[in-house]
Amino acid sequence: MFNRRTFLRLSGLTAASDFSYKSLLNSLDPEPVRFVGDGPMYSPEQCIAKLQEINKNHPIERDAYGKGGSIDQLTKAFAEMTGKEAAIYLASGTLANQLAISVLSGENTKVFVQETSHVYRDEGDAAQSVFSKRLIPLASEKAFFTLEELQQSIEDHLQGEVFRSGFGAVSIENPVRRCDGQYVPISEIKRISTYCREKGYKLHLDGARIHLAAAFSGTSVAEYASHFDTIYISLYKYLGAPGGAMLCGPKAIIDRMEHLAKVHGGVIYMNWVSAAMALHHLNGIDDRFKKMATQSKQLFSSLNQLPGITITPLENGTNIAGLKLAANVNASKLIDSLWQKHRIALARNMVDNTTRLMVNDSLLNRSNDQIVAAFKEALTVAK
Amino acid sequence: MFNRRTFLRLSGLTAASDFSYKSLLNSLDPEPVRFVGDGPMYSPEQCIAKLQEINKNHPIERDAYGKGGSIDQLTKAFAEMTGKEAAIYLASGTLANQLAISVLSGENTKVFVQETSHVYRDEGDAAQSVFSKRLIPLASEKAFFTLEELQQSIEDHLQGEVFRSGFGAVSIENPVRRCDGQYVPISEIKRISTYCREKGYKLHLDGARIHLAAAFSGTSVAEYASHFDTIYISLYKYLGAPGGAMLCGPKAIIDRMEHLAKVHGGVIYMNWVSAAMALHHLNGIDDRFKKMATQSKQLFSSLNQLPGITITPLENGTNIAGLKLAANVNASKLIDSLWQKHRIALARNMVDNTTRLMVNDSLLNRSNDQIVAAFKEALTVAK
Amino acid sequence: MFNRRTFLRLSGLTAASDFSYKSLLNSLDPEPVRFVGDGPMYSPEQCIAKLQEINKNHPIERDAYGKGGSIDQLTKAFAEMTGKEAAIYLASGTLANQLAISVLSGENTKVFVQETSHVYRDEGDAAQSVFSKRLIPLASEKAFFTLEELQQSIEDHLQGEVFRSGFGAVSIENPVRRCDGQYVPISEIKRISTYCREKGYKLHLDGARIHLAAAFSGTSVAEYASHFDTIYISLYKYLGAPGGAMLCGPKAIIDRMEHLAKVHGGVIYMNWVSAAMALHHLNGIDDRFKKMATQSKQLFSSLNQLPGITITPLENGTNIAGLKLAANVNASKLIDSLWQKHRIALARNMVDNTTRLMVNDSLLNRSNDQIVAAFKEALTVAK
Amino acid sequence: MFNRRTFLRLSGLTAASDFSYKSLLNSLDPEPVRFVGDGPMYSPEQCIAKLQEINKNHPIERDAYGKGGSIDQLTKAFAEMTGKEAAIYLASGTLANQLAISVLSGENTKVFVQETSHVYRDEGDAAQSVFSKRLIPLASEKAFFTLEELQQSIEDHLQGEVFRSGFGAVSIENPVRRCDGQYVPISEIKRISTYCREKGYKLHLDGARIHLAAAFSGTSVAEYASHFDTIYISLYKYLGAPGGAMLCGPKAIIDRMEHLAKVHGGVIYMNWVSAAMALHHLNGIDDRFKKMATQSKQLFSSLNQLPGITITPLENGTNIAGLKLAANVNASKLIDSLWQKHRIALARNMVDNTTRLMVNDSLLNRSNDQIVAAFKEALTVAK
Repeated sequence: MFNRRTFLRLSGLTAASDFSYKSLLNSLDPEPVRFVGDGPMYSPEQCIAKLQEINKNHPIERDAYGKGGSIDQLTKAFAEMTGKEAAIYLASGTLANQLAISVLSGENTKVFVQETSHVYRDEGDAAQSVFSKRLIPLASEKAFFTLEELQQSIEDHLQGEVFRSGFGAVSIENPVRRCDGQYVPISEIKRISTYCREKGYKLHLDGARIHLAAAFSGTSVAEYASHFDTIYISLYKYLGAPGGAMLCGPKAIIDRMEHLAKVHGGVIYMNWVSAAMALHHLNGIDDRFKKMATQSKQLFSSLNQLPGITITPLENGTNIAGLKLAANVNASKLIDSLWQKHRIALARNMVDNTTRLMVNDSLLNRSNDQIVAAFKEALTVAK
Repeated sequence: MFNRRTFLRLSGLTAASDFSYKSLLNSLDPEPVRFVGDGPMYSPEQCIAKLQEINKNHPIERDAYGKGGSIDQLTKAFAEMTGKEAAIYLASGTLANQLAISVLSGENTKVFVQETSHVYRDEGDAAQSVFSKRLIPLASEKAFFTLEELQQSIEDHLQGEVFRSGFGAVSIENPVRRCDGQYVPISEIKRISTYCREKGYKLHLDGARIHLAAAFSGTSVAEYASHFDTIYISLYKYLGAPGGAMLCGPKAIIDRMEHLAKVHGGVIYMNWVSAAMALHHLNGIDDRFKKMATQSKQLFSSLNQLPGITITPLENGTNIAGLKLAANVNASKLIDSLWQKHRIALARNMVDNTTRLMVNDSLLNRSNDQIVAAFKEALTVAK
Repeated sequence: MFNRRTFLRLSGLTAASDFSYKSLLNSLDPEPVRFVGDGPMYSPEQCIAKLQEINKNHPIERDAYGKGGSIDQLTKAFAEMTGKEAAIYLASGTLANQLAISVLSGENTKVFVQETSHVYRDEGDAAQSVFSKRLIPLASEKAFFTLEELQQSIEDHLQGEVFRSGFGAVSIENPVRRCDGQYVPISEIKRISTYCREKGYKLHLDGARIHLAAAFSGTSVAEYASHFDTIYISLYKYLGAPGGAMLCGPKAIIDRMEHLAKVHGGVIYMNWVSAAMALHHLNGIDDRFKKMATQSKQLFSSLNQLPGITITPLENGTNIAGLKLAANVNASKLIDSLWQKHRIALARNMVDNTTRLMVNDSLLNRSNDQIVAAFKEALTVAK
Repeated sequence: MFNRRTFLRLSGLTAASDFSYKSLLNSLDPEPVRFVGDGPMYSPEQCIAKLQEINKNHPIERDAYGKGGSIDQLTKAFAEMTGKEAAIYLASGTLANQLAISVLSGENTKVFVQETSHVYRDEGDAAQSVFSKRLIPLASEKAFFTLEELQQSIEDHLQGEVFRSGFGAVSIENPVRRCDGQYVPISEIKRISTYCREKGYKLHLDGARIHLAAAFSGTSVAEYASHFDTIYISLYKYLGAPGGAMLCGPKAIIDRMEHLAKVHGGVIYMNWVSAAMALHHLNGIDDRFKKMATQSKQLFSSLNQLPGITITPLENGTNIAGLKLAANVNASKLIDSLWQKHRIALARNMVDNTTRLMVNDSLLNRSNDQIVAAFKEALTVAK
């Protein structure tokens, strides 16, 4: 339903030109439901208010250069949550992914990744130009590769290249942003992990949005993490922080990151804003996301009963589904009506009456009945 | 008065064990005067309150990945202030220094720096290990090198090394943190700049605290900047931001930075917190800092009239002076008395009744008469 | 006929276990004809004798660190032959390819190459791990890519990757070793070159064996070179040198190579052995190779008249053709007979009575009539 | 006696303008004695003749890409001679030094070297620009640093730099070319080695001319090597090869070099010329060099008896001594007379009647009596 080009056109959601979205960000209206974004999207005003609330309940402790205070609480929480020995706060997901891959693969050059992955497509060729790695893409335009595809590629490179440079690591993104959030089946992860451990290849999980995979697949974050050496989780996709990334793994690996972050210019003076926001939203996330997953499944089923609207879940999908309006529905009117009257936000930039519905925990702000009623009314208006 | 080792022992001011400092950070007491730090030192609570105040007066606009909103306002302000074509927000001073030096020197390897500079001593060997540069230190243990010392080193390397690699750039830190904030005389900067432009060597100014040099030397930030190709200024030393750095220079140079920041993992999702704080404190800084410089000179002169206390300014000094208490003064009592009774903070970790006084704009919270009276009283108590 | 695996199995020609080949190398028998190798294959004894002969006719002048004497003669000869401003002697083809690509693409990351090319498959991931480039392979398992395939890939990367890093250079290997020496049509080269010059992308020709392409395609070396910014030509594939590579191009590019070779540890004290051998074999090479091309075509046609032997030329082939013996021919006997009686060498390691015939200028040591007669007799013996 | 500038002026010995030297190189006259160079200096003609002689006695076996045949004999010989597990042939001393330092220091950045060393001054900043290392120079303008100087520098860096990057390795050049061949006392080497092993710092010996140190200090090559992890020895300084370097050390270290040499473009097709020449000259080198050392000491003592000539050995000197002619001696006439009549070569480029005498095994071509007589006669002519 969504090919790569559509994805790219539709993903310009943060553009300032998207009026409803922009007003949404700055709105102080209570409790909108947004079918846009993976998590909370605070305007500066909202963020400041949230920080004040957080600080009132649990006074925020400052860090210094990513150490101490709230950052230490954060690393402890992430290490526990992922079942890893250690965790470190890093400035960006790109830094987390690149350092993990670089350190895990050591002097070996070749790193296997999904062709659709962030590390291959969205990190500006950092792996090759800064971190001395050759990324070998697998599973073109698909969400994941199988163990057999990985083995075949390893075999091809072993047989087909005369001067060998070793195989270092395998990186798997899960869920996959460029595949509309599809998750990688845990069964395939287990097979790949078993094989890699046998062979001595290290495994990195780009779990920027791993809680989404966990909520929709039923596999816990800790279970996912257990099959990898390192795991990166974003602090701003759905944890409300303005930025930042957590990298978790064995102490011996994580201990090397502070120096590497420093020499790449990635150590920042104070980071308690991100830490406090992330800690707050981490609290109870599993329950919240499970409810969201359950509620969204039921909601889509109910909405599909309405005339003029078709919602199509993806195979191995997480929080993204396809929305198709009938030809006689005026999309613009529908969007306006839902927002102005019901504070329900849809992405404005539809193509052929088609867009993506993104579910996040703002769904829990209403009951499904309320949302269905709102759609029903708006669909009437929009004809 | 302060050798390197003393500096290092004394600079551990942010250690959590420093009680008076810690309580200070979290204090909501009005208007302390701190002889510690180069600028405001907000506790999380204070920072949140300040953000709220800022947002009330001028609604803060969010950025996305260091572009748009408050970040655009910030880059515009810095470009204007420094008289440069362009400016960019970067995550850290290390990133700003390293990228500037790297891009300015191009394929040339050798970069001349002060032996005492941050880029040589405090960036974890990033220049050599990540950015492919050989730093050649000049002026060992001194605040600056002369044109002749630079020329001599260039000549020595030309004559003394068989396989030549070109000279790329010269970097000057001003004022110099490891020399207790001494500034580099503008006359020497002009001579070096004239020579370098003649020879085609590029010049970078590590002006992390350039406003301090400007206030105490009487040379404006724009005047300093005019002699360099690029200039970096910190957002957190005295501009109240939790982190961040601005790099200003020619558009052709600055335009290359976004990609380089990205591939080093230094592009962060949202940065409006730092932008808003920095913009706020940038407002009126020249006046404020000039007043501070004048007031501190008069204050030290008055304090030197008191028995048991000697304050020694540094040659080419900025906001740091030496404080020596007579043998019969109990330093601990003095510090406690000044803080508890007068909300005047001195660094707690004295060595042989000696420490550094650091002046910042908290000085403007009281008149000199009030401060002198407080010291007078406290000195009596402390005997 | 020859897939990748076959190629790899068959290419182990230099293995010490290949008896007939080994004895050949050390043989002083006059004038063998070898269907193995792209050029002369001197044993140490033969090489020393050849150097003595060369030195007698034109006293060899020593170089120092790749400068002066015979090396200067060599660089002059290559610059003239390729029509380029400058040329430099480098230690290896890998160094020549990597430095060319690195310097041509500058700060841009992406370099387009054939998936079958040496630079992609046989240089140990040097581009990614040492020279900071991302190689993007085109035309999987084929000898060349078309302009349209190049444009499509450029477009896909422009559209499909969010953080862009620029396109630097395009490298084309011609002829292609991993495609059994197939050459790239000059018409396609012209189209690609026109497009790249329009767009500002730089073009490198890995012409390790470019004289083979020239002889069999009828396009001169100078004509090939004119469509590229830089061209590398090997000194040991068919020019008799023990090692070494020439890189030719604009003076501004080539002038940067000496320093780069030095810092990669590739500057060697004396190189006159390779220079003298290469200069000697360069002399008259165009005539010799044209005769070889013509004679081989006629020879294969004649040999195909014989029962039990089928020779199949490749499309856009150069000096390699497929040889298939009938099931009733004993390959081993045929090889032994040809060598022992006629000093005609075939590769010993056949698979299913199949191998590759490699033509080189040793073909000119006999007339086609003599060679056909030898095969005829040997085929009789081998049944 | 010889400062750096003199050294550099005097070291231009290979310049084509040095007539007597040039004619010498191409001469077939039997058995000159040269006070120039560290070892044999073959013209191409002489080298070819020598190769022929070598091949006649022990047929030279070719290698392929630095493996097999004569190269295998060479690596075996060097491993045995140095008492190390493994050895590898590399294209240049720069490659050997840089790879050794890089691999030994691993992820640590700081490497300590003599300020006068080749690795610091004559490798084009390769360490910083290609191999990611920060070289810290010790013992400015001196031949060696003491253990205390090393410890002091380590301590200064530990205390004086906030963001630490680890200490990786210590590299010692011995003897030191920029200090006129002075050797490093074995007593100091032992102290440094004991300390480094205790601390876990790795030690590299740049022993390009280690046999000269061995001959003049009385410490064997194996004894020197035993105090280091890796040792590099040149093949062309006194072993007659046109180029090449041997790196010896633990198997685990040396095994990593082939791939690294490959990706830096340093793997060359055939290297048997250098291997054969080096193997030949390695044979009996210890005896030859000991005789040379003894004979030169006696010779200088005898020559110092002659009027008008003063020879001054260096402290810890090896094969280089200072030669000073009295003001009334015409240096040019002396040089001409010695060469034309006696085939004794002095460096032509004297400064103030001063030059360096370099002893090598050509000294063994005459008895001291013959040489003294020749000088005596030439001094008479030169007045």
